[in-house]
Amino acid sequence: MTRIGIINPNSTSSMTTAIGAAALRAAHKTTEIIAMQNDRGPASIEGAVDGARAVPGLLDCIERAERGGAMDAYIIACFDDTGLDAARMLTRKPVIGIGEAAARIAAMISRRFTIITTLPVSIPVLEDNLVRYGLASVGTVRASGIPVLGLEADPSAALSTIGEGIRDALRVDRSGAIVLGCAGMADMAQQLSDLHSVPVVEGVSAAVRLAELLTSLELQPRATRTALPRHCSDDVGPR
Amino acid sequence: MTRIGIINPNSTSSMTTAIGAAALRAAHKTTEIIAMQNDRGPASIEGAVDGARAVPGLLDCIERAERGGAMDAYIIACFDDTGLDAARMLTRKPVIGIGEAAARIAAMISRRFTIITTLPVSIPVLEDNLVRYGLASVGTVRASGIPVLGLEADPSAALSTIGEGIRDALRVDRSGAIVLGCAGMADMAQQLSDLHSVPVVEGVSAAVRLAELLTSLELQPRATRTALPRHCSDDVGPR
Amino acid sequence: MTRIGIINPNSTSSMTTAIGAAALRAAHKTTEIIAMQNDRGPASIEGAVDGARAVPGLLDCIERAERGGAMDAYIIACFDDTGLDAARMLTRKPVIGIGEAAARIAAMISRRFTIITTLPVSIPVLEDNLVRYGLASVGTVRASGIPVLGLEADPSAALSTIGEGIRDALRVDRSGAIVLGCAGMADMAQQLSDLHSVPVVEGVSAAVRLAELLTSLELQPRATRTALPRHCSDDVGPR
Amino acid sequence: MTRIGIINPNSTSSMTTAIGAAALRAAHKTTEIIAMQNDRGPASIEGAVDGARAVPGLLDCIERAERGGAMDAYIIACFDDTGLDAARMLTRKPVIGIGEAAARIAAMISRRFTIITTLPVSIPVLEDNLVRYGLASVGTVRASGIPVLGLEADPSAALSTIGEGIRDALRVDRSGAIVLGCAGMADMAQQLSDLHSVPVVEGVSAAVRLAELLTSLELQPRATRTALPRHCSDDVGPR
Amino acid sequence: MTRIGIINPNSTSSMTTAIGAAALRAAHKTTEIIAMQNDRGPASIEGAVDGARAVPGLLDCIERAERGGAMDAYIIACFDDTGLDAARMLTRKPVIGIGEAAARIAAMISRRFTIITTLPVSIPVLEDNLVRYGLASVGTVRASGIPVLGLEADPSAALSTIGEGIRDALRVDRSGAIVLGCAGMADMAQQLSDLHSVPVVEGVSAAVRLAELLTSLELQPRATRTALPRHCSDDVGPR
Amino acid sequence: MTRIGIINPNSTSSMTTAIGAAALRAAHKTTEIIAMQNDRGPASIEGAVDGARAVPGLLDCIERAERGGAMDAYIIACFDDTGLDAARMLTRKPVIGIGEAAARIAAMISRRFTIITTLPVSIPVLEDNLVRYGLASVGTVRASGIPVLGLEADPSAALSTIGEGIRDALRVDRSGAIVLGCAGMADMAQQLSDLHSVPVVEGVSAAVRLAELLTSLELQPRATRTALPRHCSDDVGPR
Repeated sequence: MTRIGIINPNSTSSMTTAIGAAALRAAHKTTEIIAMQNDRGPASIEGAVDGARAVPGLLDCIERAERGGAMDAYIIACFDDTGLDAARMLTRKPVIGIGEAAARIAAMISRRFTIITTLPVSIPVLEDNLVRYGLASVGTVRASGIPVLGLEADPSAALSTIGEGIRDALRVDRSGAIVLGCAGMADMAQQLSDLHSVPVVEGVSAAVRLAELLTSLELQPRATRTALPRHCSDDVGPR
Repeated sequence: MTRIGIINPNSTSSMTTAIGAAALRAAHKTTEIIAMQNDRGPASIEGAVDGARAVPGLLDCIERAERGGAMDAYIIACFDDTGLDAARMLTRKPVIGIGEAAARIAAMISRRFTIITTLPVSIPVLEDNLVRYGLASVGTVRASGIPVLGLEADPSAALSTIGEGIRDALRVDRSGAIVLGCAGMADMAQQLSDLHSVPVVEGVSAAVRLAELLTSLELQPRATRTALPRHCSDDVGPR
Repeated sequence: MTRIGIINPNSTSSMTTAIGAAALRAAHKTTEIIAMQNDRGPASIEGAVDGARAVPGLLDCIERAERGGAMDAYIIACFDDTGLDAARMLTRKPVIGIGEAAARIAAMISRRFTIITTLPVSIPVLEDNLVRYGLASVGTVRASGIPVLGLEADPSAALSTIGEGIRDALRVDRSGAIVLGCAGMADMAQQLSDLHSVPVVEGVSAAVRLAELLTSLELQPRATRTALPRHCSDDVGPR
Repeated sequence: MTRIGIINPNSTSSMTTAIGAAALRAAHKTTEIIAMQNDRGPASIEGAVDGARAVPGLLDCIERAERGGAMDAYIIACFDDTGLDAARMLTRKPVIGIGEAAARIAAMISRRFTIITTLPVSIPVLEDNLVRYGLASVGTVRASGIPVLGLEADPSAALSTIGEGIRDALRVDRSGAIVLGCAGMADMAQQLSDLHSVPVVEGVSAAVRLAELLTSLELQPRATRTALPRHCSDDVGPR
Repeated sequence: MTRIGIINPNSTSSMTTAIGAAALRAAHKTTEIIAMQNDRGPASIEGAVDGARAVPGLLDCIERAERGGAMDAYIIACFDDTGLDAARMLTRKPVIGIGEAAARIAAMISRRFTIITTLPVSIPVLEDNLVRYGLASVGTVRASGIPVLGLEADPSAALSTIGEGIRDALRVDRSGAIVLGCAGMADMAQQLSDLHSVPVVEGVSAAVRLAELLTSLELQPRATRTALPRHCSDDVGPR
Repeated sequence: MTRIGIINPNSTSSMTTAIGAAALRAAHKTTEIIAMQNDRGPASIEGAVDGARAVPGLLDCIERAERGGAMDAYIIACFDDTGLDAARMLTRKPVIGIGEAAARIAAMISRRFTIITTLPVSIPVLEDNLVRYGLASVGTVRASGIPVLGLEADPSAALSTIGEGIRDALRVDRSGAIVLGCAGMADMAQQLSDLHSVPVVEGVSAAVRLAELLTSLELQPRATRTALPRHCSDDVGPR
């Protein structure tokens, strides 16, 4: 049994539930999904300030889980990949952000891809992440302009607006795959894919599958950073 | 049942067998591995000439399999990712090269990684591939100098020589993961990992798992290129 | 007398003839042009699959010529520079692709240039080549949308459509030179140059002249790859 | 009178005092330095985990100061530039990190420069920052291996060890300026400069002067992010 | 007292006067501005030829001033940063170009910025400079199309035309700061900033403040190149 | 008859003679070489200051020749490509720098190449030029440390010292071609090539041949910059 802890960095229970359910749908039957919520986190994460406020509680989640020792991998369920570098210092087990997962998968199925996110405030964060992943020259970021609540309030208008972004992505950016940059769009993935005849990658499912993959390969990722004075680093190899 | 066709681009049966066996070891029990051999290919692939001569037969393999319609994904089992772009034009199903798979996995578990290959003649090919994958700034390529046959002839000398390359990779390149750039090194993966306390990624297992992942996500990767006049391209979106 | 072998990687005689004639027109009178045809190749090359299928026969052409020992240089007359890396492994003599030749010449006469090719399916190949040549930041690729046969079928409509691409290149891409990305456009070079008052570079003539130049400099390009086990590589210098 | 708030993201009072004193020494006499301490922060910051835990309190500092409305600029006194992006979302006033300040100054006085930091664990963070500042091709990062306490414990050994790093920077990296990547090295700046005849840039003084500069130019940096739903972004211009 | 020599590389007295006045307005009261004029220079500098003709006299200015020994820093008051590299070889004191100053300041206050210059002939020079400063991915260059004289002839038309460029910069380039790429626009800075609610950076004031900053940090920038055979270089460190 | 004006940017007659002779040796018999000397230039060019002082006279040379109207192309015979951008503004005819010529030729015959220059002071200039040509990732620059006079004073010691640089280039930089970065090394080209079994590219011959090539292709390179107010630019296309 593979145990994957998927962490909602914000403190909204309904989102934690939805994330857990989405993860479960994507998981193999031999995978157990443990949804965790950062109770200290903000209600939602839109932009760098929210993201920063979410990280300490996120790190506590992982440290707590590590003391229990039961998890085989962790997923950070915020498309900004909030706190990813810090989280990777806490454990040797795989830690995956749903943004990174979706982007790397998209890069394997198309020469170019576009991330459609909600609001423009997220564009710089996602663009910086693409640079970090080496995907800045093959990925673009577009904002639908629809806040998370708008997705639920008027789904068909959302579908239409997101559809415009997709058409621009195909025509102007010449992308061959779309990445949904917000968990709230996940339910639209299949519909959008059918409507526009383009592969649509969603972050939670991509991350669950990648976590299963990395776990099954039985690699020891990074050197762990324990409470000891951290003077070892990834860059000189683990000891 | 997921059916993955793994193609040996060269015509050496013993290698096809070994590749198939390695793939089977890595596969989930719900995955069927079909090992295919390119009978028209050269005996082995070392460098751009061999690689080029291997591609037409490799493409025939895929076209034949596509006519059968049974495969869900394809893996090209040559670390140079020989013929990958052309192969992707033949089908909408995922096509993965073992070099690409290993490199992308390594990039998810360490900031920097080094590919240890056999002979220097392969270095330019692999470096070009790293550029294509956006990983040129995080991956380096080193040659052990041991030809494939040398790996089998004197495994402990090989272990030692490859070990020197790994130490250089850790110390000079500051890598935190090693990628084995030759199927012939696959059996040494675990030993090398334990000896040097560093994650070691091997291409066949990485590719099998990625193929399973992409298949399970039920994405439609590229627009298919059929026998019809190919005037559609990925760059303007699939039809 | 300088002897340049110019190889048509496809198997269409009329194209071989046309290529040879164009090469002859560009050559100095002390240069002998030997046009060679890849009889094993596809009828035409449009995209990565055709390109891949053309390479083995192309390599055979060069190997055969090398056994004869008469050639001083080789030109691969496909704008995709099909098989260029592999071909360079077969001889120490200069091997030039007409795409590379045209791009490098254009880069010497203008800060920015645009390649106008026929169909969109070629755009990714040419863009990848520009990256390889270090010209990705100064060259763009546009597709006229006209297949090769359309150039001959309705030349004035072709002139007009290509003209639109040139105007976009000048205005949007701010290019100062145009590269014709298809041999079939070669006859329009002068007309297009006059119509739009912009330098137009054509691949066959550029390649012939570059082959003459490299030959006359009497450089020994790459270390030759003979039938001996190829374990020397360019990267550690020739021996 | 210009009022600059300089924030120690960690909770160690002696460091806050030292930072404030260093800032005061660098400041013009018309500048008032207000040293602020993040009481919620970790005792020190070494690596991404500490950095992440420091940010929420750092942001609180700035929000509190903004409500008072007295500050003209803010400096984040951690060489990692911890929380810089998030902090810039909270105010239109200049926010400067001492790492960014030192790096940008060094880039104006030498073609190449090297940051000498304490421990290897900081190298990835600083390298990522150099990429963000566009300075990755002109700046390198070296670790002295001496933890902060070691600087105080045996200053002359520290001077010697750091000197080795400086010699490597000059000889191997061909740098013409040194940046001290740790506040604890600040007192050695003049000595190291004289010993090695090389300009040495220190972060607190660089940041104070840059803060004075940006303030005096009376620019309105970023659009402010207030408590209102943040749907404006820098990328579409301020409103 | 800090003494800054600001050099007008062209020979037009009215411009030297205006530059000196602008510098004085920006300077601290403890800074003395010495405006110098290159009497051997062209009447104005528009493009690479003018720029090249201006440099020898510019260098003479600096050499003469160095013999006097009174200056603490130099500013080259041409937005092209004409002769900057050569000037830096003549002295250890800071030498700053107003283009470099403005660009580096803009990069500290906004993720993206746009330089609005006068005529298109300057675009390549400024773009090359952005590459040199590591700012090519965050800065764009637009030409208003208004020559210098047009700015004075019809200021309100100029304001309007430049305003269009600013709107394009905000909307299309997604810039958050504007840099005025011509001294003749300096007087419009505040008006443009207010009109478009965007920070506007002007080169002379930015450079004066940066010169004051670098001087106050008491760094020894480059190794001086004296009349002795110059065989020391910045790249192996100063002696 | 093709007439190529090759300009010595410095004022040393013996060098002008040597350059003219080298050009003549490389030229086709239908090419007339006109050697021109910049009498206003410095005695030699070593570094950015000399280079800058040489440019105005160089531009005068070209303007004078253009008034005569006899030249078909120009070569700037300084390996720094001194004044190349400005010179290209003066004429529509090809203008080539010997550094650019040699680098672009080397890039066509080897994956990697190294420029061996005389003194370290030239390294930054040449590295900047490689960036401009898109060759920064394939070319390196090494300094032999031998000044021009040393080449003539003790040729065999020079041969030996340069040989060390070549060995480093092959072994460390993994280069497959050498470019001689100084006209004074030209006579050693063949000897060095034979000694080290590596292609050696020399700038004057490369430039002469490229000038012949560009002339024979009858392209109109850049829009001419005449004495008229220069408000057209390459970037919006020629008129």
